[in-house]
Amino acid sequence: MIIVGGPASNGIDEKLSEMLNVKLIKAEHKIFPDGESYIRIPESVRGEEVAIVQSTYYPQDKHLIELLLMIEAVKNLGASKIISIIPYLAYARQDRRFKDGEALSLKIVLNLIYESGSDELITVEPHKPDAVISYFKGNVKIVDPTPALAREIKKEVENPFILAPDRGALERAERLAKELNSPYSHIEKERDRTTGEVRIKEAPHLDLHGKDVVLIDDIISTGGTLAQASQLSYNLGARKVIAAATHVLLVNDAYDKLTRAGIKSIIGTNTIKVENKNVKIADISDLIAVKL
Amino acid sequence: MIIVGGPASNGIDEKLSEMLNVKLIKAEHKIFPDGESYIRIPESVRGEEVAIVQSTYYPQDKHLIELLLMIEAVKNLGASKIISIIPYLAYARQDRRFKDGEALSLKIVLNLIYESGSDELITVEPHKPDAVISYFKGNVKIVDPTPALAREIKKEVENPFILAPDRGALERAERLAKELNSPYSHIEKERDRTTGEVRIKEAPHLDLHGKDVVLIDDIISTGGTLAQASQLSYNLGARKVIAAATHVLLVNDAYDKLTRAGIKSIIGTNTIKVENKNVKIADISDLIAVKL
Repeated sequence: MIIVGGPASNGIDEKLSEMLNVKLIKAEHKIFPDGESYIRIPESVRGEEVAIVQSTYYPQDKHLIELLLMIEAVKNLGASKIISIIPYLAYARQDRRFKDGEALSLKIVLNLIYESGSDELITVEPHKPDAVISYFKGNVKIVDPTPALAREIKKEVENPFILAPDRGALERAERLAKELNSPYSHIEKERDRTTGEVRIKEAPHLDLHGKDVVLIDDIISTGGTLAQASQLSYNLGARKVIAAATHVLLVNDAYDKLTRAGIKSIIGTNTIKVENKNVKIADISDLIAVKL
Repeated sequence: MIIVGGPASNGIDEKLSEMLNVKLIKAEHKIFPDGESYIRIPESVRGEEVAIVQSTYYPQDKHLIELLLMIEAVKNLGASKIISIIPYLAYARQDRRFKDGEALSLKIVLNLIYESGSDELITVEPHKPDAVISYFKGNVKIVDPTPALAREIKKEVENPFILAPDRGALERAERLAKELNSPYSHIEKERDRTTGEVRIKEAPHLDLHGKDVVLIDDIISTGGTLAQASQLSYNLGARKVIAAATHVLLVNDAYDKLTRAGIKSIIGTNTIKVENKNVKIADISDLIAVKL
Protein backbone atom coordinates (compact mmCIF):
# COMPACT_ATOMS: atom_id res chain seq x y z
CA MET A 1 0.00 0.00 0.00
CA ILE A 2 0.99 3.59 -0.70
CA ILE A 3 -0.47 6.66 1.01
CA VAL A 4 -1.04 9.70 -1.21
CA GLY A 5 -1.42 12.90 0.79
CA GLY A 6 -3.57 15.68 -0.62
CA PRO A 7 -3.58 19.44 0.06
CA ALA A 8 -6.27 18.97 2.75
CA SER A 9 -4.87 15.86 4.46
CA ASN A 10 -4.19 17.87 7.61
CA GLY A 11 -1.22 15.70 8.65
CA ILE A 12 -3.25 12.48 8.79
CA ASP A 13 -1.38 11.23 5.69
CA GLU A 14 1.96 11.45 7.52
CA LYS A 15 0.62 9.82 10.66
CA LEU A 16 -0.87 6.91 8.68
CA SER A 17 2.39 6.42 6.81
CA GLU A 18 4.32 6.23 10.09
CA MET A 19 1.81 4.04 11.94
CA LEU A 20 1.51 1.56 9.08
CA ASN A 21 5.11 1.90 7.94
CA VAL A 22 4.06 2.42 4.32
CA LYS A 23 5.34 4.84 1.72
CA LEU A 24 3.89 8.35 1.59
CA ILE A 25 3.72 10.32 -1.65
CA LYS A 26 2.73 13.94 -1.22
CA ALA A 27 0.62 15.14 -4.15
CA GLU A 28 2.15 18.16 -5.85
CA HIS A 29 -0.43 20.91 -5.86
CA LYS A 30 -0.79 24.57 -6.61
CA ILE A 31 -3.50 27.05 -7.36
CA PHE A 32 -3.06 28.93 -10.64
CA PRO A 33 -3.44 32.74 -10.56
CA ASP A 34 -7.00 32.39 -11.94
CA GLY A 35 -8.04 30.08 -9.07
CA GLU A 36 -7.89 26.67 -10.74
CA SER A 37 -6.22 23.80 -8.90
CA TYR A 38 -3.31 21.79 -10.25
CA ILE A 39 -2.54 18.25 -9.06
CA ARG A 40 0.34 15.93 -9.88
CA ILE A 41 1.37 12.61 -8.34
CA PRO A 42 5.16 12.76 -8.67
CA GLU A 43 5.98 9.05 -8.35
CA SER A 44 4.82 5.75 -9.76
CA VAL A 45 1.98 3.85 -8.06
CA ARG A 46 1.63 1.21 -10.79
CA GLY A 47 0.07 -1.99 -9.51
CA GLU A 48 -0.20 -0.64 -5.95
CA GLU A 49 -3.13 -0.25 -3.63
CA VAL A 50 -3.33 3.50 -3.00
CA ALA A 51 -5.04 5.28 -0.11
CA ILE A 52 -5.59 8.96 -0.91
CA VAL A 53 -6.01 11.20 2.14
CA GLN A 54 -8.01 14.37 1.52
CA SER A 55 -10.51 15.94 3.87
CA THR A 56 -13.23 18.20 2.45
CA TYR A 57 -13.48 20.99 4.99
CA TYR A 58 -13.80 24.62 3.85
CA PRO A 59 -13.36 25.50 1.00
CA GLN A 60 -15.28 22.26 0.45
CA ASP A 61 -15.74 22.53 -3.31
CA LYS A 62 -12.05 23.17 -3.95
CA HIS A 63 -10.98 20.30 -1.70
CA LEU A 64 -13.51 18.03 -3.36
CA ILE A 65 -12.30 18.86 -6.87
CA GLU A 66 -8.70 18.35 -5.72
CA LEU A 67 -9.70 14.90 -4.44
CA LEU A 68 -11.28 14.01 -7.78
CA LEU A 69 -8.18 15.22 -9.63
CA MET A 70 -6.00 13.05 -7.38
CA ILE A 71 -8.18 9.98 -7.94
CA GLU A 72 -7.98 10.51 -11.70
CA ALA A 73 -4.20 10.93 -11.65
CA VAL A 74 -3.66 7.89 -9.41
CA LYS A 75 -5.94 5.76 -11.56
CA ASN A 76 -4.17 6.87 -14.71
CA LEU A 77 -0.84 5.87 -13.16
CA GLY A 78 -2.15 2.31 -12.91
CA ALA A 79 -3.01 1.82 -9.22
CA SER A 80 -4.63 -1.56 -8.60
CA LYS A 81 -7.12 -0.23 -6.04
CA ILE A 82 -8.00 3.26 -4.84
CA ILE A 83 -9.24 4.01 -1.33
CA SER A 84 -10.39 7.56 -0.60
CA ILE A 85 -9.85 8.53 3.02
CA ILE A 86 -12.05 11.57 3.57
CA PRO A 87 -11.91 12.36 7.29
CA TYR A 88 -14.59 15.07 7.00
CA LEU A 89 -17.10 14.42 4.24
CA ALA A 90 -18.65 17.64 2.94
CA TYR A 91 -22.31 17.82 1.94
CA ALA A 92 -23.16 14.91 4.29
CA ARG A 93 -26.06 16.84 5.85
CA GLN A 94 -27.95 17.11 2.54
CA ASP A 95 -28.63 13.37 2.78
CA ARG A 96 -32.18 13.48 1.44
CA ARG A 97 -34.55 15.74 -0.50
CA PHE A 98 -36.23 17.76 2.23
CA LYS A 99 -38.29 19.50 -0.47
CA ASP A 100 -39.18 18.48 -4.02
CA GLY A 101 -36.62 19.61 -6.55
CA GLU A 102 -33.68 19.76 -4.19
CA ALA A 103 -30.34 18.39 -5.25
CA LEU A 104 -29.41 15.35 -3.20
CA SER A 105 -25.95 16.71 -2.63
CA LEU A 106 -24.55 13.80 -0.62
CA LYS A 107 -25.54 11.31 -3.31
CA ILE A 108 -23.96 13.30 -6.12
CA VAL A 109 -20.74 13.90 -4.17
CA LEU A 110 -20.43 10.17 -3.45
CA ASN A 111 -21.17 9.38 -7.08
CA LEU A 112 -18.44 11.75 -8.24
CA ILE A 113 -15.93 10.05 -5.96
CA TYR A 114 -16.93 6.59 -7.15
CA GLU A 115 -17.16 7.45 -10.85
CA SER A 116 -13.75 9.12 -10.72
CA GLY A 117 -12.29 5.73 -9.82
CA SER A 118 -12.41 5.30 -6.05
CA ASP A 119 -13.19 1.70 -5.10
CA GLU A 120 -13.51 2.29 -1.38
CA LEU A 121 -14.35 5.16 0.95
CA ILE A 122 -13.23 5.61 4.54
CA THR A 123 -14.77 8.50 6.43
CA VAL A 124 -15.14 9.56 10.05
CA GLU A 125 -18.64 9.71 11.51
CA PRO A 126 -20.66 11.26 8.70
CA HIS A 127 -23.96 12.87 9.66
CA LYS A 128 -25.97 9.78 8.63
CA PRO A 129 -23.70 6.74 8.14
CA ASP A 130 -26.51 4.70 6.54
CA ALA A 131 -27.01 7.33 3.84
CA VAL A 132 -23.30 7.27 2.98
CA ILE A 133 -23.29 3.48 2.82
CA SER A 134 -26.36 3.38 0.59
CA TYR A 135 -25.27 6.12 -1.85
CA PHE A 136 -21.62 5.11 -2.38
CA LYS A 137 -21.46 2.31 -4.94
CA GLY A 138 -18.19 0.89 -3.61
CA ASN A 139 -17.17 -0.36 -0.18
CA VAL A 140 -17.61 2.07 2.76
CA LYS A 141 -15.86 1.98 6.13
CA ILE A 142 -17.06 4.31 8.87
CA VAL A 143 -14.65 5.39 11.59
CA ASP A 144 -16.07 5.95 15.08
CA PRO A 145 -14.07 8.79 16.66
CA THR A 146 -15.39 8.13 20.19
CA PRO A 147 -12.19 6.58 21.60
CA ALA A 148 -10.10 9.55 20.44
CA LEU A 149 -12.59 12.10 21.80
CA ALA A 150 -12.81 10.19 25.10
CA ARG A 151 -9.03 10.40 25.54
CA GLU A 152 -9.16 14.21 25.35
CA ILE A 153 -12.36 14.55 27.37
CA LYS A 154 -10.85 12.61 30.28
CA LYS A 155 -8.23 15.34 30.65
CA GLU A 156 -10.93 17.99 31.11
CA VAL A 157 -13.56 16.52 33.44
CA GLU A 158 -13.82 14.75 36.79
CA ASN A 159 -17.43 13.75 37.19
CA PRO A 160 -18.72 13.63 33.62
CA PHE A 161 -22.32 13.56 32.50
CA ILE A 162 -22.75 13.09 28.76
CA LEU A 163 -25.55 15.17 27.27
CA ALA A 164 -26.81 14.98 23.69
CA PRO A 165 -28.29 18.29 22.51
CA ASP A 166 -31.10 16.49 20.69
CA ARG A 167 -32.61 13.04 20.43
CA GLY A 168 -30.72 12.33 17.18
CA ALA A 169 -27.40 12.58 19.03
CA LEU A 170 -28.42 10.15 21.77
CA GLU A 171 -26.77 7.08 20.27
CA ARG A 172 -23.52 9.05 19.99
CA ALA A 173 -23.83 10.13 23.65
CA GLU A 174 -24.36 6.50 24.63
CA ARG A 175 -21.16 5.42 22.86
CA LEU A 176 -19.18 8.11 24.63
CA ALA A 177 -20.78 7.34 28.00
CA LYS A 178 -19.75 3.70 27.67
CA GLU A 179 -16.18 4.73 26.86
CA LEU A 180 -16.08 7.05 29.89
CA ASN A 181 -18.22 4.83 32.12
CA SER A 182 -20.51 7.74 32.95
CA PRO A 183 -24.22 8.56 32.87
CA TYR A 184 -25.85 10.16 29.84
CA SER A 185 -29.08 11.66 28.64
CA HIS A 186 -30.43 13.99 26.00
CA ILE A 187 -32.46 17.14 25.80
CA GLU A 188 -34.92 18.16 23.09
CA LYS A 189 -34.84 20.75 20.35
CA GLU A 190 -37.89 22.33 18.79
CA ARG A 191 -38.10 24.46 15.69
CA ASP A 192 -40.32 27.55 15.74
CA ARG A 193 -42.78 27.07 12.87
CA THR A 194 -42.84 30.73 11.93
CA THR A 195 -39.28 31.97 12.49
CA GLY A 196 -37.48 28.67 11.77
CA GLU A 197 -35.43 29.30 14.91
CA VAL A 198 -34.21 26.32 16.90
CA ARG A 199 -34.88 26.34 20.64
CA ILE A 200 -33.83 23.92 23.35
CA LYS A 201 -36.78 22.80 25.48
CA GLU A 202 -36.73 22.94 29.27
CA ALA A 203 -35.74 19.66 30.94
CA PRO A 204 -37.01 19.77 34.52
CA HIS A 205 -36.39 16.03 35.00
CA LEU A 206 -32.60 16.41 34.65
CA ASP A 207 -30.48 17.03 37.73
CA LEU A 208 -26.96 18.06 36.80
CA HIS A 209 -25.82 19.33 40.21
CA GLY A 210 -22.09 18.85 40.71
CA LYS A 211 -21.70 17.33 37.24
CA ASP A 212 -19.17 18.19 34.55
CA VAL A 213 -21.46 18.19 31.54
CA VAL A 214 -20.01 17.03 28.23
CA LEU A 215 -22.17 18.18 25.33
CA ILE A 216 -21.56 15.84 22.41
CA ASP A 217 -22.48 16.34 18.76
CA ASP A 218 -21.19 15.30 15.35
CA ILE A 219 -20.62 18.83 14.06
CA ILE A 220 -20.18 22.23 15.70
CA SER A 221 -21.18 24.71 13.00
CA THR A 222 -22.63 28.05 14.14
CA GLY A 223 -22.79 26.77 17.74
CA GLY A 224 -26.31 28.02 18.42
CA THR A 225 -27.76 24.77 19.73
CA LEU A 226 -24.77 23.97 21.94
CA ALA A 227 -24.76 27.48 23.43
CA GLN A 228 -28.39 27.04 24.47
CA ALA A 229 -27.69 23.54 25.78
CA SER A 230 -24.86 24.96 27.89
CA GLN A 231 -27.07 27.60 29.46
CA LEU A 232 -29.72 25.01 30.21
CA SER A 233 -27.10 22.74 31.79
CA TYR A 234 -25.97 25.50 34.16
CA ASN A 235 -29.63 26.20 35.01
CA LEU A 236 -29.93 22.54 35.94
CA GLY A 237 -26.97 22.78 38.33
CA ALA A 238 -23.95 21.81 36.19
CA ARG A 239 -20.58 22.65 37.75
CA LYS A 240 -18.85 22.97 34.39
CA VAL A 241 -19.81 22.48 30.74
CA ILE A 242 -17.55 21.44 27.89
CA ALA A 243 -18.41 20.60 24.28
CA ALA A 244 -17.01 17.81 22.12
CA ALA A 245 -17.69 17.09 18.49
CA THR A 246 -16.10 15.08 15.73
CA HIS A 247 -16.05 17.91 13.21
CA VAL A 248 -15.46 21.38 14.64
CA LEU A 249 -16.32 23.83 11.87
CA LEU A 250 -16.81 26.86 14.16
CA VAL A 251 -18.52 29.08 11.60
CA ASN A 252 -18.45 32.87 12.05
CA ASP A 253 -18.58 33.86 15.76
CA ALA A 254 -19.35 30.34 17.00
CA TYR A 255 -16.34 30.24 19.34
CA ASP A 256 -17.33 33.47 21.10
CA LYS A 257 -20.94 32.32 21.28
CA LEU A 258 -19.92 29.08 22.99
CA THR A 259 -17.51 30.82 25.37
CA ARG A 260 -20.13 33.39 26.36
CA ALA A 261 -22.52 30.51 27.06
CA GLY A 262 -20.05 29.20 29.65
CA ILE A 263 -18.46 26.36 27.67
CA LYS A 264 -15.02 25.93 29.24
CA SER A 265 -13.40 23.68 26.64
CA ILE A 266 -14.10 22.69 23.06
CA ILE A 267 -12.75 19.35 21.90
CA GLY A 268 -12.66 18.27 18.27
CA THR A 269 -10.66 15.97 16.02
CA ASN A 270 -8.20 16.50 13.19
CA THR A 271 -10.79 15.67 10.51
CA ILE A 272 -10.95 19.48 10.19
CA LYS A 273 -8.09 21.95 10.12
CA VAL A 274 -9.23 24.05 13.07
CA GLU A 275 -7.63 27.50 13.04
CA ASN A 276 -8.65 28.43 16.61
CA LYS A 277 -5.77 27.38 18.87
CA ASN A 278 -8.02 27.10 21.94
CA VAL A 279 -9.82 24.08 20.54
CA LYS A 280 -8.29 20.83 21.79
CA ILE A 281 -7.71 18.38 18.96
CA ALA A 282 -7.96 14.60 19.29
CA ASP A 283 -6.04 12.65 16.65
CA ILE A 284 -8.14 10.01 14.87
CA SER A 285 -5.31 8.61 12.68
CA ASP A 286 -4.98 5.38 14.67
CA LEU A 287 -8.70 4.73 14.27
CA ILE A 288 -8.36 5.14 10.50
CA ALA A 289 -5.20 3.02 10.40
CA VAL A 290 -7.00 -0.08 11.73
CA LYS A 291 -9.43 0.13 8.79
CA LEU A 292 -6.63 -0.14 6.21
CA MET B 1 -37.61 23.23 -23.87
CA ILE B 2 -37.09 24.86 -20.49
CA ILE B 3 -34.12 27.00 -19.51
CA VAL B 4 -32.80 26.52 -15.96
CA GLY B 5 -30.64 29.42 -14.81
CA GLY B 6 -27.89 28.75 -12.29
CA PRO B 7 -26.12 31.08 -9.84
CA ALA B 8 -23.37 31.76 -12.42
CA SER B 9 -25.55 32.16 -15.50
CA ASN B 10 -24.58 35.85 -15.73
CA GLY B 11 -27.90 36.86 -17.34
CA ILE B 12 -27.47 34.56 -20.35
CA ASP B 13 -30.34 32.38 -19.03
CA GLU B 14 -32.75 35.33 -19.22
CA LYS B 15 -31.57 36.37 -22.67
CA LEU B 16 -31.97 32.83 -24.03
CA SER B 17 -35.44 32.55 -22.55
CA GLU B 18 -36.48 35.80 -24.25
CA MET B 19 -34.82 35.09 -27.59
CA LEU B 20 -36.25 31.58 -27.85
CA ASN B 21 -39.52 32.41 -26.10
CA VAL B 22 -39.18 29.44 -23.74
CA LYS B 23 -39.84 29.17 -20.04
CA LEU B 24 -37.09 30.13 -17.60
CA ILE B 25 -36.80 28.52 -14.16
CA LYS B 26 -34.29 30.18 -11.87
CA ALA B 27 -32.57 27.60 -9.66
CA GLU B 28 -32.99 28.41 -5.99
CA HIS B 29 -29.56 28.61 -4.44
CA LYS B 30 -27.85 29.65 -1.28
CA ILE B 31 -24.57 29.10 0.48
CA PHE B 32 -24.86 27.68 4.01
CA PRO B 33 -22.88 29.39 6.79
CA ASP B 34 -20.23 26.65 6.57
CA GLY B 35 -19.67 27.30 2.83
CA GLU B 36 -21.65 24.45 1.27
CA SER B 37 -23.93 25.20 -1.67
CA TYR B 38 -27.63 24.43 -1.76
CA ILE B 39 -29.56 23.98 -5.00
CA ARG B 40 -33.25 23.48 -5.66
CA ILE B 41 -35.24 23.49 -8.90
CA PRO B 42 -38.57 24.93 -7.74
CA GLU B 43 -40.81 23.73 -10.60
CA SER B 44 -41.52 20.58 -12.53
CA VAL B 45 -39.46 19.77 -15.64
CA ARG B 46 -40.88 16.26 -16.09
CA GLY B 47 -40.61 15.04 -19.67
CA GLU B 48 -39.03 18.29 -20.83
CA GLU B 49 -35.77 19.00 -22.58
CA VAL B 50 -33.85 21.19 -20.13
CA ALA B 51 -30.96 23.53 -20.90
CA ILE B 52 -29.07 24.45 -17.72
CA VAL B 53 -27.07 27.68 -17.95
CA GLN B 54 -24.09 27.88 -15.59
CA SER B 55 -20.70 29.35 -16.36
CA THR B 56 -17.67 28.18 -14.38
CA TYR B 57 -15.69 31.35 -13.83
CA TYR B 58 -14.12 32.10 -10.43
CA PRO B 59 -14.75 30.52 -7.94
CA GLN B 60 -14.56 27.73 -10.51
CA ASP B 61 -14.89 24.77 -8.14
CA LYS B 62 -18.00 26.17 -6.44
CA HIS B 63 -19.65 26.98 -9.75
CA LEU B 64 -18.79 23.53 -11.06
CA ILE B 65 -20.27 21.77 -8.03
CA GLU B 66 -23.39 23.94 -8.32
CA LEU B 67 -23.71 22.85 -11.95
CA LEU B 68 -23.44 19.18 -10.97
CA LEU B 69 -26.05 19.67 -8.23
CA MET B 70 -28.39 21.29 -10.77
CA ILE B 71 -27.91 18.46 -13.26
CA GLU B 72 -28.69 15.91 -10.54
CA ALA B 73 -31.81 17.77 -9.41
CA VAL B 74 -33.09 18.26 -12.97
CA LYS B 75 -32.48 14.61 -13.81
CA ASN B 76 -34.26 13.50 -10.67
CA LEU B 77 -37.26 15.61 -11.63
CA GLY B 78 -37.58 13.55 -14.80
CA ALA B 79 -36.22 15.77 -17.58
CA SER B 80 -36.11 13.92 -20.92
CA LYS B 81 -32.79 15.46 -22.00
CA ILE B 82 -30.27 17.68 -20.23
CA ILE B 83 -28.10 20.19 -22.06
CA SER B 84 -25.39 21.95 -20.05
CA ILE B 85 -24.65 25.43 -21.37
CA ILE B 86 -21.30 26.36 -19.86
CA PRO B 87 -20.26 29.65 -21.47
CA TYR B 88 -16.82 29.58 -19.82
CA LEU B 89 -15.51 26.09 -19.21
CA ALA B 90 -13.06 25.97 -16.30
CA TYR B 91 -9.99 23.72 -16.38
CA ALA B 92 -9.97 23.77 -20.20
CA ARG B 93 -6.28 24.63 -20.32
CA GLN B 94 -5.21 21.43 -18.54
CA ASP B 95 -6.17 19.52 -21.70
CA ARG B 96 -3.32 17.02 -21.59
CA ARG B 97 -0.70 15.61 -19.20
CA PHE B 98 2.24 17.95 -19.69
CA LYS B 99 4.20 15.84 -17.18
CA ASP B 100 3.75 12.24 -16.00
CA GLY B 101 1.44 11.94 -13.04
CA GLU B 102 -0.57 15.09 -13.71
CA ALA B 103 -4.31 15.05 -13.38
CA LEU B 104 -5.95 15.56 -16.74
CA SER B 105 -8.28 18.13 -15.27
CA LEU B 106 -10.31 18.87 -18.41
CA LYS B 107 -11.10 15.20 -18.90
CA ILE B 108 -12.26 14.67 -15.34
CA VAL B 109 -14.38 17.84 -15.34
CA LEU B 110 -16.10 16.75 -18.56
CA ASN B 111 -16.60 13.26 -17.12
CA LEU B 112 -18.23 14.68 -14.01
CA ILE B 113 -20.65 16.69 -16.14
CA TYR B 114 -21.52 13.67 -18.28
CA GLU B 115 -21.76 11.16 -15.45
CA SER B 116 -24.01 13.52 -13.49
CA GLY B 117 -26.54 13.22 -16.29
CA SER B 118 -25.80 15.84 -18.93
CA ASP B 119 -26.44 14.51 -22.43
CA GLU B 120 -25.10 17.50 -24.30
CA LEU B 121 -22.61 20.30 -23.70
CA ILE B 122 -22.60 23.74 -25.28
CA THR B 123 -19.60 25.92 -24.55
CA VAL B 124 -18.04 29.04 -25.99
CA GLU B 125 -14.57 28.73 -27.55
CA PRO B 126 -12.76 26.46 -25.11
CA HIS B 127 -8.96 26.55 -25.20
CA LYS B 128 -8.76 23.41 -27.37
CA PRO B 129 -12.16 22.56 -28.91
CA ASP B 130 -10.92 19.16 -30.13
CA ALA B 131 -9.95 18.13 -26.62
CA VAL B 132 -13.42 19.03 -25.31
CA ILE B 133 -15.07 17.09 -28.11
CA SER B 134 -12.93 14.02 -27.52
CA TYR B 135 -13.25 13.94 -23.70
CA PHE B 136 -16.99 14.61 -23.35
CA LYS B 137 -18.90 11.38 -23.92
CA GLY B 138 -22.10 13.13 -25.07
CA ASN B 139 -22.76 15.58 -27.87
CA VAL B 140 -20.68 18.80 -27.89
CA LYS B 141 -21.50 22.09 -29.60
CA ILE B 142 -18.86 24.79 -29.73
CA VAL B 143 -19.91 28.42 -30.02
CA ASP B 144 -17.65 30.76 -32.00
CA PRO B 145 -17.84 34.20 -30.33
CA THR B 146 -16.20 36.02 -33.27
CA PRO B 147 -19.35 37.72 -34.59
CA ALA B 148 -20.16 39.15 -31.14
CA LEU B 149 -16.60 40.35 -30.56
CA ALA B 150 -16.49 41.87 -34.05
CA ARG B 151 -19.62 43.93 -33.33
CA GLU B 152 -17.91 45.55 -30.32
CA ILE B 153 -14.51 45.89 -31.98
CA LYS B 154 -16.02 47.83 -34.91
CA LYS B 155 -17.06 50.55 -32.46
CA GLU B 156 -13.46 51.02 -31.30
CA VAL B 157 -11.27 50.97 -34.40
CA GLU B 158 -11.05 52.59 -37.85
CA ASN B 159 -8.24 50.87 -39.65
CA PRO B 160 -7.95 47.53 -37.88
CA PHE B 161 -5.08 45.10 -38.05
CA ILE B 162 -5.73 41.82 -36.26
CA LEU B 163 -2.72 40.49 -34.41
CA ALA B 164 -2.47 37.11 -32.68
CA PRO B 165 -0.03 37.14 -29.75
CA ASP B 166 1.26 33.69 -30.67
CA ARG B 167 1.03 31.20 -33.50
CA GLY B 168 -1.64 29.18 -31.65
CA ALA B 169 -4.03 32.12 -31.85
CA LEU B 170 -3.57 32.63 -35.59
CA GLU B 171 -6.66 30.72 -36.66
CA ARG B 172 -8.72 32.84 -34.25
CA ALA B 173 -7.19 36.02 -35.71
CA GLU B 174 -8.06 34.82 -39.18
CA ARG B 175 -11.72 34.30 -38.23
CA LEU B 176 -11.91 37.79 -36.79
CA ALA B 177 -10.08 39.33 -39.77
CA LYS B 178 -12.63 37.78 -42.13
CA GLU B 179 -15.49 39.15 -40.05
CA LEU B 180 -13.92 42.65 -40.09
CA ASN B 181 -12.51 42.37 -43.59
CA SER B 182 -9.07 43.44 -42.38
CA PRO B 183 -5.48 42.18 -42.55
CA TYR B 184 -4.05 39.92 -39.84
CA SER B 185 -0.84 38.34 -38.71
CA HIS B 186 0.77 36.84 -35.63
CA ILE B 187 3.85 37.34 -33.55
CA GLU B 188 5.85 34.70 -31.70
CA LYS B 189 6.28 33.87 -28.04
CA GLU B 190 9.28 32.11 -26.56
CA ARG B 191 9.69 30.65 -23.12
CA ASP B 192 12.96 31.19 -21.27
CA ARG B 193 14.26 27.71 -20.48
CA THR B 194 15.66 28.68 -17.10
CA THR B 195 13.19 31.23 -15.70
CA GLY B 196 10.05 29.91 -17.39
CA GLU B 197 9.23 33.49 -18.34
CA VAL B 198 7.34 34.14 -21.56
CA ARG B 199 8.77 36.73 -23.94
CA ILE B 200 7.41 38.11 -27.19
CA LYS B 201 9.99 37.93 -29.98
CA GLU B 202 10.83 40.93 -32.14
CA ALA B 203 8.94 41.05 -35.46
CA PRO B 204 10.91 43.32 -37.82
CA HIS B 205 8.87 42.17 -40.83
CA LEU B 206 5.62 43.68 -39.48
CA ASP B 207 4.72 47.26 -40.40
CA LEU B 208 1.87 48.54 -38.23
CA HIS B 209 2.19 52.26 -39.10
CA GLY B 210 -1.18 54.00 -38.90
CA LYS B 211 -2.94 50.80 -37.89
CA ASP B 212 -5.41 50.24 -35.05
CA VAL B 213 -4.05 46.96 -33.76
CA VAL B 214 -6.56 44.48 -32.32
CA LEU B 215 -4.81 41.89 -30.18
CA ILE B 216 -6.99 38.78 -30.07
CA ASP B 217 -6.77 35.83 -27.70
CA ASP B 218 -9.10 33.27 -26.15
CA ILE B 219 -8.37 34.22 -22.54
CA ILE B 220 -6.94 37.28 -20.83
CA SER B 221 -5.60 35.98 -17.54
CA THR B 222 -2.63 37.83 -15.98
CA GLY B 223 -2.25 39.92 -19.15
CA GLY B 224 1.52 39.52 -19.40
CA THR B 225 1.68 38.35 -23.00
CA LEU B 226 -0.80 40.93 -24.27
CA ALA B 227 1.03 43.76 -22.47
CA GLN B 228 4.24 42.80 -24.24
CA ALA B 229 2.42 42.43 -27.56
CA SER B 230 1.02 45.92 -27.12
CA GLN B 231 4.43 47.45 -26.53
CA LEU B 232 5.81 45.66 -29.58
CA SER B 233 2.88 46.92 -31.67
CA TYR B 234 3.61 50.52 -30.75
CA ASN B 235 7.31 49.94 -31.53
CA LEU B 236 6.21 48.77 -34.97
CA GLY B 237 4.25 51.98 -35.57
CA ALA B 238 0.72 51.17 -34.34
CA ARG B 239 -1.53 54.21 -33.90
CA LYS B 240 -3.66 52.55 -31.24
CA VAL B 241 -3.83 49.10 -29.64
CA ILE B 242 -6.89 47.39 -28.20
CA ALA B 243 -7.30 43.84 -26.85
CA ALA B 244 -10.20 41.45 -27.38
CA ALA B 245 -10.71 38.03 -25.89
CA THR B 246 -13.58 35.63 -25.41
CA HIS B 247 -12.96 35.07 -21.72
CA VAL B 248 -11.67 38.08 -19.79
CA LEU B 249 -10.48 36.76 -16.42
CA LEU B 250 -8.25 39.77 -15.59
CA VAL B 251 -6.36 38.15 -12.73
CA ASN B 252 -4.68 40.34 -10.08
CA ASP B 253 -3.33 43.59 -11.59
CA ALA B 254 -3.91 42.52 -15.21
CA TYR B 255 -6.07 45.55 -16.03
CA ASP B 256 -3.43 48.03 -14.85
CA LYS B 257 -0.71 46.08 -16.63
CA LEU B 258 -2.63 46.27 -19.91
CA THR B 259 -3.47 49.94 -19.47
CA ARG B 260 0.14 50.82 -18.69
CA ALA B 261 1.17 48.98 -21.86
CA GLY B 262 -1.00 51.39 -23.88
CA ILE B 263 -4.03 49.18 -24.51
CA LYS B 264 -6.88 51.65 -25.02
CA SER B 265 -9.86 49.26 -24.78
CA ILE B 266 -10.45 45.75 -23.56
CA ILE B 267 -13.32 43.84 -25.12
CA GLY B 268 -14.67 40.58 -23.72
CA THR B 269 -17.89 38.61 -23.70
CA ASN B 270 -20.45 37.74 -21.05
CA THR B 271 -19.11 34.18 -20.64
CA ILE B 272 -17.42 35.70 -17.55
CA LYS B 273 -18.87 38.06 -15.00
CA VAL B 274 -16.33 40.83 -15.42
CA GLU B 275 -16.27 43.15 -12.40
CA ASN B 276 -14.20 45.87 -14.06
CA LYS B 277 -16.67 48.34 -15.58
CA ASN B 278 -14.14 49.60 -18.14
CA VAL B 279 -14.16 46.31 -20.01
CA LYS B 280 -16.61 46.36 -22.92
CA ILE B 281 -18.80 43.26 -22.95
CA ALA B 282 -20.13 41.61 -26.11
CA ASP B 283 -23.23 39.46 -25.60
CA ILE B 284 -22.92 35.94 -27.01
CA SER B 285 -26.46 34.80 -26.13
CA ASP B 286 -27.70 34.91 -29.74
CA LEU B 287 -24.80 32.71 -30.80
CA ILE B 288 -25.76 30.17 -28.15
CA ALA B 289 -29.46 30.41 -29.01
CA VAL B 290 -28.92 29.19 -32.58
CA LYS B 291 -27.36 25.99 -31.20
CA LEU B 292 -30.49 25.09 -29.21
